[in-house]
Amino acid sequence: MSNIDQLNELLSFRYATKEFDPTKVITAEEKSALLSALHLSPSSFGLQLWKFYNIEDPSLREKLKAESWGQGQVTDASMFVVLAAETNLDEARVDKWIARLAEVQGAPIEKLAGYKEVLMGFVYSMNETQKVEWAKKQVYIALGQLMTSAALLGIDTCPLEGISPIAYDEILGLKDKGYTTAVACAIGHRNATDRHATTPKARFPIEEMVETV
Amino acid sequence: MSNIDQLNELLSFRYATKEFDPTKVITAEEKSALLSALHLSPSSFGLQLWKFYNIEDPSLREKLKAESWGQGQVTDASMFVVLAAETNLDEARVDKWIARLAEVQGAPIEKLAGYKEVLMGFVYSMNETQKVEWAKKQVYIALGQLMTSAALLGIDTCPLEGISPIAYDEILGLKDKGYTTAVACAIGHRNATDRHATTPKARFPIEEMVETV
Repeated sequence: MSNIDQLNELLSFRYATKEFDPTKVITAEEKSALLSALHLSPSSFGLQLWKFYNIEDPSLREKLKAESWGQGQVTDASMFVVLAAETNLDEARVDKWIARLAEVQGAPIEKLAGYKEVLMGFVYSMNETQKVEWAKKQVYIALGQLMTSAALLGIDTCPLEGISPIAYDEILGLKDKGYTTAVACAIGHRNATDRHATTPKARFPIEEMVETV
Repeated sequence: MSNIDQLNELLSFRYATKEFDPTKVITAEEKSALLSALHLSPSSFGLQLWKFYNIEDPSLREKLKAESWGQGQVTDASMFVVLAAETNLDEARVDKWIARLAEVQGAPIEKLAGYKEVLMGFVYSMNETQKVEWAKKQVYIALGQLMTSAALLGIDTCPLEGISPIAYDEILGLKDKGYTTAVACAIGHRNATDRHATTPKARFPIEEMVETV
């Protein structure tokens, strides 16, 4: 199968899975690849203003489910990831990134001074609310990469926005750590009973959504 | 090659391409698959609060480049897509989606009344600014899906946030159409001279970014 055929197949395979089969688990190798997909996601300036919580503890899953309109995916899916955005974007955080960049690339920090200046200009242009919104947008890139990557592996996902971020933050103790819940994603295998799997994919016509100019 | 190996390979292949080779073009079949990846992206409630502009007109590319800090990717990449968020999220827009859903799924609109109510509750919980921010987050899912999909095809991308959304909106006449620029993405093939292609991928250690609890 060509990669184009494979891409088209995975695009049609993916749907927001409503019912997961709790008996079908993600293997350790798959889990590792999906967490890599999150870890290696692109982000603005490479800042990685995020943290990903892979929730395995069943009692935590139950608590989160209660704050997710009782959606079964939270407890039934083999994996459940909370994607959090970093809330403390300041010069110290930028310096932390610059130091990491210098370390990985083996470059002296001084050579990154111009880059830091551009980055700080961007940071200073936003108020605190805008900074968090910006960080959350980055998290949604990671969410996109995660779902597409899972589909490539024949793994189902369901993004969850219908959750209480405040309650999630409380349960996971995120506030003190400088993070806030942006979105969550259940990952596993569809249950044979999920009628959504066979419902036609509903999109507006492509001519209305994509315009070539 | 297993799909897991393929995923790991594409994750390491992808990087924010700084220099595109203007002579290397995306084929019609690849273009179509990538536009499909945008069109079929997941979005909250399936609302698709977005529009994707595939910019082919060289003079438009030049105008956009001038509003993008002169970044060469805007004109050098084989494809250049502007990802816009919809700005008019109201009951009429929700009704449009409900009607489309009923049409595609062959269900009577009345059966979707409960779904509409949930959706409207969500819409009413946001002010106008929050609605646009919400739409932009959806656009970032599409951006993530686009970049991962391209990497699967061995195609390079560079997301561009360093652009003037206001100027982009003006150039593309988006305001009157009810859209606003969220982000852009250059798509093509890396130039052999792009030193960023061989720079080590810089990420914080995975243990700091992913926590299993």
